[in-house]
Amino acid sequence: MQWLDEIKWDAAGLVPVIAQEKGSNDVLMFAWMNREALALTAERGQAVYFSRSRHKLWHKGEESGHFQVVHEIRLDCDNDVVLLQVTQQGHEPGIACHTGRHSCFFSRLENGGWTPVEPVLKDPGSIYK
Amino acid sequence: MQWLDEIKWDAAGLVPVIAQEKGSNDVLMFAWMNREALALTAERGQAVYFSRSRHKLWHKGEESGHFQVVHEIRLDCDNDVVLLQVTQQGHEPGIACHTGRHSCFFSRLENGGWTPVEPVLKDPGSIYK
Repeated sequence: MQWLDEIKWDAAGLVPVIAQEKGSNDVLMFAWMNREALALTAERGQAVYFSRSRHKLWHKGEESGHFQVVHEIRLDCDNDVVLLQVTQQGHEPGIACHTGRHSCFFSRLENGGWTPVEPVLKDPGSIYK
Repeated sequence: MQWLDEIKWDAAGLVPVIAQEKGSNDVLMFAWMNREALALTAERGQAVYFSRSRHKLWHKGEESGHFQVVHEIRLDCDNDVVLLQVTQQGHEPGIACHTGRHSCFFSRLENGGWTPVEPVLKDPGSIYK
């Protein structure tokens, strides 16, 4: 598929991906995709990432039930970063982070230290059985 | 500085950075920082990136005048991605992209192809003399 060929995959065959919540525009998380993951994401309309630690495809929500419905796929001016507009499913408000928080970006730099500034919405122990 | 030590820098000593516009929450751009760039960003309250192509610090706006005032610096749950809340200066609405557009993420996947869906706000030739 030509639109996949136009992406500048890095040396590992990956592209960085930002997931942004439709509506709030909150940045929920950042992950990576390989060619297969992005093709599946477009095909299914659900986010499929590539886990660099587990070295395999990672259908977001496969364990937690917190799937991401993908409304829009965007590419940046250098063709090397992807931005998804998603709806985070499985909880209200949406939980994208494995810590049970809305967004993975919950630590803020304050007075020379990282401070968690977003609440845990659900105990991670009850998300991942 | 300890907060810099807590970041998981990649093999090249870099961390991916997302710049998000304060207010609209639009994702404006994606770039990289090394330790020095992030330290300077926090110190000055203006975004300083590390250019991987030019292999040097890149004070955003140094050529274009389109500086980014940094309101907030966030870190993700894996300590390996930074999110900035910025105000994009130098034009109204802000221009973060070198193509003269508001955001670098102006191409949308439509019918199997990437389509530019955001207008050029200013001729790049008049931004970079």
